[in-house]
Amino acid sequence: MQEALKEAEKALEFDEVPVGALIVMGDEVIARAHNLRETSQDATAHAELLAIRKACEALKTWRLVGCTLYVTLEPCPMCAGAIVLSRLDRVVFGAHDPKAGACGSLMNIPEDERFNHRPEMVPGVLAEECGKILKDFFKKKR
Amino acid sequence: MQEALKEAEKALEFDEVPVGALIVMGDEVIARAHNLRETSQDATAHAELLAIRKACEALKTWRLVGCTLYVTLEPCPMCAGAIVLSRLDRVVFGAHDPKAGACGSLMNIPEDERFNHRPEMVPGVLAEECGKILKDFFKKKR
Repeated sequence: MQEALKEAEKALEFDEVPVGALIVMGDEVIARAHNLRETSQDATAHAELLAIRKACEALKTWRLVGCTLYVTLEPCPMCAGAIVLSRLDRVVFGAHDPKAGACGSLMNIPEDERFNHRPEMVPGVLAEECGKILKDFFKKKR
Repeated sequence: MQEALKEAEKALEFDEVPVGALIVMGDEVIARAHNLRETSQDATAHAELLAIRKACEALKTWRLVGCTLYVTLEPCPMCAGAIVLSRLDRVVFGAHDPKAGACGSLMNIPEDERFNHRPEMVPGVLAEECGKILKDFFKKKR
């Protein structure tokens, strides 16, 4: 998660909402990404979605079996949906997102038994640090 | 929707699940896409997500204000989340998806009042034709 936080810090350099993600398989980091919505002017350019796309590219498969996603903020519905679709084994996230979180806050897409895949979810890892970088960013914006 | 069906037919040529989408602004089609998950080996390569990314690129903004998405199948959680994030004005879809639909079937993400944007939803347009192309595809696969 420390590495995901480093990715979030990179987002700050682009004046982007600081969320970072990485995907790990065994001991190897196979994808790193941070939020790039403003820079790329792409509504789908959340850290998780970019990391999933990069991991699929790196492994040459859409099935991310055996992989863990680390992300500093609770995924939104789009990213939670992508997590289910990509068959990730495990998701470790930092701060909860009471406004748009779809992994326990507003809804719980990855643990919904009606879908055909359910990753293991590990919430709240380094939650304070992951939340602080976001709070500091929005405080400066005001 | 006839044009979205043509996109779905293109997916068939790639042996992909036949779902097609297009995004229209005024009288102009600004993005067309079809499902490309297998061809691109990208878990996120659903017709709607690809169309949204293309539309953002075409308009050079992540805000698809004034745009309507036409898609042959009810969007899944990932695509429904992307619809909310991209601020699309309106979504017209064909067949309902009882297994993974997130616009009324299993859940209803675009009309959830807790999110900061709610597009107008028009379900069931040419539903029979949109469903038939999918049913025929899966019948052949068995």
